[in-house]
Amino acid sequence: MTQLLDVDPAWLPDEALRAVGTRPVQVLGDGPLVDTVRHEVAAAHAKFAAEAGHSGAVSCDLLLRIADGGDAGPEGFTLERDGSRTTVAATDPAGLLHGFFHVVRLGDAAFTAAPAQTHRPALALRMLDHWDNVAVHPVMGQVERGYAGGSLFWRDGRARGDLARVRAYARLLAACGINALGVNNVNVHETEAHLLTDRIDEVAAIARELSPYGIRVHLSVSFAAPVLLGGLDTADPHDAAVRAWWREAAEHVYTHIPDFGGFVVKADSEGQPGPFAHGRSHADGANLLADALAPHGGTVHWRAFVYDHRQDWRDRTTDRARAAYDHFAPLDGRFRDNAILQVKHGPMDFQVREPVSPVIGALSRTRVAVELQATQEYTGQQRHVCALAPAWSEVLRFRPDGADGPDIGRLARGGGLVAVSNAGDDPFWTGHPLAQFNLYAFGRLAWQPDADPDALLDEWIELTFTPDRCADPARLRSGLRAVLRDSWTTYEKYTAPLGSGFMVQPGHHYGPGIDGYEYSPWGTYHFADRDGIGVDRSLATGTGYAAQYAKPWSETYETPESCPDELLLFFHHVPYGHRLHSGKTVIQHIYDTHFEGVEEVEAARRTWQSLADLVAPARHRRVAERYEEQLRGAREWRDQVNSYFLRKSGVPDAGGRRIH
Amino acid sequence: MTQLLDVDPAWLPDEALRAVGTRPVQVLGDGPLVDTVRHEVAAAHAKFAAEAGHSGAVSCDLLLRIADGGDAGPEGFTLERDGSRTTVAATDPAGLLHGFFHVVRLGDAAFTAAPAQTHRPALALRMLDHWDNVAVHPVMGQVERGYAGGSLFWRDGRARGDLARVRAYARLLAACGINALGVNNVNVHETEAHLLTDRIDEVAAIARELSPYGIRVHLSVSFAAPVLLGGLDTADPHDAAVRAWWREAAEHVYTHIPDFGGFVVKADSEGQPGPFAHGRSHADGANLLADALAPHGGTVHWRAFVYDHRQDWRDRTTDRARAAYDHFAPLDGRFRDNAILQVKHGPMDFQVREPVSPVIGALSRTRVAVELQATQEYTGQQRHVCALAPAWSEVLRFRPDGADGPDIGRLARGGGLVAVSNAGDDPFWTGHPLAQFNLYAFGRLAWQPDADPDALLDEWIELTFTPDRCADPARLRSGLRAVLRDSWTTYEKYTAPLGSGFMVQPGHHYGPGIDGYEYSPWGTYHFADRDGIGVDRSLATGTGYAAQYAKPWSETYETPESCPDELLLFFHHVPYGHRLHSGKTVIQHIYDTHFEGVEEVEAARRTWQSLADLVAPARHRRVAERYEEQLRGAREWRDQVNSYFLRKSGVPDAGGRRIH
Repeated sequence: MTQLLDVDPAWLPDEALRAVGTRPVQVLGDGPLVDTVRHEVAAAHAKFAAEAGHSGAVSCDLLLRIADGGDAGPEGFTLERDGSRTTVAATDPAGLLHGFFHVVRLGDAAFTAAPAQTHRPALALRMLDHWDNVAVHPVMGQVERGYAGGSLFWRDGRARGDLARVRAYARLLAACGINALGVNNVNVHETEAHLLTDRIDEVAAIARELSPYGIRVHLSVSFAAPVLLGGLDTADPHDAAVRAWWREAAEHVYTHIPDFGGFVVKADSEGQPGPFAHGRSHADGANLLADALAPHGGTVHWRAFVYDHRQDWRDRTTDRARAAYDHFAPLDGRFRDNAILQVKHGPMDFQVREPVSPVIGALSRTRVAVELQATQEYTGQQRHVCALAPAWSEVLRFRPDGADGPDIGRLARGGGLVAVSNAGDDPFWTGHPLAQFNLYAFGRLAWQPDADPDALLDEWIELTFTPDRCADPARLRSGLRAVLRDSWTTYEKYTAPLGSGFMVQPGHHYGPGIDGYEYSPWGTYHFADRDGIGVDRSLATGTGYAAQYAKPWSETYETPESCPDELLLFFHHVPYGHRLHSGKTVIQHIYDTHFEGVEEVEAARRTWQSLADLVAPARHRRVAERYEEQLRGAREWRDQVNSYFLRKSGVPDAGGRRIH
Repeated sequence: MTQLLDVDPAWLPDEALRAVGTRPVQVLGDGPLVDTVRHEVAAAHAKFAAEAGHSGAVSCDLLLRIADGGDAGPEGFTLERDGSRTTVAATDPAGLLHGFFHVVRLGDAAFTAAPAQTHRPALALRMLDHWDNVAVHPVMGQVERGYAGGSLFWRDGRARGDLARVRAYARLLAACGINALGVNNVNVHETEAHLLTDRIDEVAAIARELSPYGIRVHLSVSFAAPVLLGGLDTADPHDAAVRAWWREAAEHVYTHIPDFGGFVVKADSEGQPGPFAHGRSHADGANLLADALAPHGGTVHWRAFVYDHRQDWRDRTTDRARAAYDHFAPLDGRFRDNAILQVKHGPMDFQVREPVSPVIGALSRTRVAVELQATQEYTGQQRHVCALAPAWSEVLRFRPDGADGPDIGRLARGGGLVAVSNAGDDPFWTGHPLAQFNLYAFGRLAWQPDADPDALLDEWIELTFTPDRCADPARLRSGLRAVLRDSWTTYEKYTAPLGSGFMVQPGHHYGPGIDGYEYSPWGTYHFADRDGIGVDRSLATGTGYAAQYAKPWSETYETPESCPDELLLFFHHVPYGHRLHSGKTVIQHIYDTHFEGVEEVEAARRTWQSLADLVAPARHRRVAERYEEQLRGAREWRDQVNSYFLRKSGVPDAGGRRIH
């Protein structure tokens, strides 16, 4: 692959291919994905031909081969390193491709002796959802919650012509392990609905670019499609004509896209149509589409994001956090084998801190996919640095049944891991160049959910910045680690405290609005008054949400004494003087973290400035610009949050710092 | 004039012309405006020809004539009613037109004997500003702060073709005394800037429709026009080329529109260009345009709405309320004779309750126009009934120098009265049919600033609803009075209390957002904390704004004890337990007024329902629909405001009512 002009190479700069490009390599096998590996190798050789020619004796070489009878399974591979030759063997061409990129990630280390190892993805489905609109939406624009320019796939109502960019994107995704991609917004507007039928060729064109990198295309569809597109007078899943319509629709899709992945559906959610209108359950709805896809090997991703978004803020008995469990736990076991219930990792909506959604642990007879949000809707919108791998890792390591039970990474094996993509047609792919790490880390965690996020950060740093090629590798590595590793907790410190969530400007969700969602219909409240703050979700005195968890978590979350500090205000309404396990009062914790958060941004900004001589100028400049905005924004958050709580509580800062 | 199909006749239904249409009338004089009177009479006669024919003996007749040598002055007229003949005499054709509509307003009463009376407009300039964009603005739409459909003048970047609607609008405006109209938004965007030069013919076409009703066209222009349109490299008012450019621009305008009124300018305000960029004063800026207009008899309306809209909310020393006085009082006496300083009636921005702007009383050597807002940006956006005549009347009767000094109506004689129009291409002109009264009352108050608002309401009711033609005139009259007369104070009761202002949703300004503008850069704060609320604008301990007033007001406003209750929180920060002159505490006042406000809306809605048999169905239905929204909105305001202050203050409602 050649680099696209004016597009950042992200984690595949030429230098990242040096270890392969400077060594003799052999590729054995047939098929399009093997050809992709072959092309990758040839391109790397072309880049480093001069150096390879001069390098004289080659210390070892690389063999990539399809080998029947291995136990690596689909997409897996075995890596043997005997010190003179490194061999990647896979039964499946996709496995060979992943093995190739594994070698790229290892770099020179791939050519030192090590015991043979078999690598398999922990999760079979590792998917990115693009909330990209085909037609520009009057409010949400081309990409809903997109902060990285336009869509890579669509522009002004049509498919984009420049498929080279899509191909380059597929390559980046394959290199971090992603194997599925939803090409349009889960909010399916009128134009987008037609992708399923008369505009399927536009989806097929995208699929042809993704397919050589082992990535299958998925399509968000409208549950009302039989009415909207088919002219039927119902979309009732029990209606024979509706079932026939979906079967034909799926058949039609597969004639255009033989390796089509399946449908993604947001039903009965925030205004989207769904089975409720017909008196049917969400299992009925999902199974309708699953049955249509089954003959072709497709799956339906049915989103569990169903709640009352026209809630009355006066009503304290309704709790949006309960909704996914209340709707879907009773349906466990009623979904088809090729229906996947796609559940947001937390019960609300991608806040900087939420507990893990209890419904994930309550669906032992359902395939569950866990949905994360790489696009930073609530975490700084790619103007703030917020490396989410540690947050995601916490989710994936959470054990709903306690220490002896399986973790979320294990529970997601049936359905996979999904993230809303943060990529767009921005030259840096993700707006903020450092947000590329979120995309990369997502793919890697989907492959290996128990991976150490710090190790993934180092891996990404090595690939993206190739520190060994710069004047001061140690300073570059430590600087990059410093600005990224704890950036999530930094962001948490200066925004909504202790799991309270939201407190953002309504609509666009950027910047502080402490009461922005307090009197709204969205079910997102903190109930701060002059005495205290937080939502009582206990069983004893609150909404009962805490009891949706199995033990020990139902007990842990039930009382303020046992609840972890960072989730205290999510589960309990406490006085400002309530003492945390940290020893601080809630109000002093709010003040302290907000001052600290800004100080940490100031420090990160200085650190970034100190790397100017070690980072490519365009990338350094873009990040430096965003740090100015992040610092401005962090100060605004600090001052508004602290002022709000000082005005409400009347408690002065113990540190005597200035609060307005 | 014939009624336009599908357009509400507002205050000129056929029935309103009955008294004239059924009587023999003679019109003597020449010129286009006299012809307009002649056409009006002929049209009325045509309508009532049958009845007039049958009426047999005519009790008296009407003579409208141009008569040299009268003392009524321009636009004035003398009315003589001897019981057998009614005579309107005017020296100026415009006076004859106004006299004609005066007779229409009087109806049959015009034909009873009464002493001769001369009528003159108190203010020479009675102007509507349309904040209409030519090109649809991405945020503000076709009409900025418009709640009555599209623009009457512009659509999607071009002038509208249907000038019949413009003509009908001109007729309505003339019938209530308006004689000037600004055809485009004071925020002059790129497309609109060109109206001044290469698109002046579109303005001229509008002017030709308004002119027969005695209405002159004014145009909002960009101060940067010499750069934007003229290709100059500066807009500096001291630059000779700039001065020449404006002279030529004005010359060009007058060749197309001989009775052109002049320019309206919003400079150095909310992002619009102005003289500050060139180190010049606003007098320099205004005089530049005044000099260009002077040879043609035009005036420049220079808006005094200059303030820092990027204020830091942390900075309590800056006070937006001070801005107009601080900027313009020092410039008194430095403006040309044909420059009018156009000042918003209050120091902030058309809130439901503000004190009268102190700068109006501080400009004895400057022509001042007072600007009101008929479009209900902050007063319910024509979804809520809010008859503003009582509010405007309070402003116009305010005496800046105390009881012995002139009132605002008097001080505005040099410059006139201006309102931002609430009319659009909605079939009812103003969205809410009852909002027509605001348009009507504005015109009538501009003619006679000391008119009794209740009398104007009755006048409007008689014209618009012609109660005598319905089955139960008394019920209709009392019902309409009941829903309109106190609707302003009703609206005030359920929205921002005691002069605190704002508390609206940011951006669109509809619905409650108690902290919506509290941490914003707009200079609009209430500083509510757990102990109290309000802005200290005293001289002794606050921003000093109170001292911008002359005595006695500077003393009245200086202390909470002497400050009128309704403005208390505008001038003072007081504890929730502060006792008002009413005897109530501030917090109890907040609770009580918010419960009362909703009850008053409920009562008004019931009253309106009871009029269903007496009001035209389409009009009744439209108003009934809007009452549903008003009631919903009023309850939302009540509950959010009360909850906010209960949570902050902790003081329970003395009435024990439910607060959430």
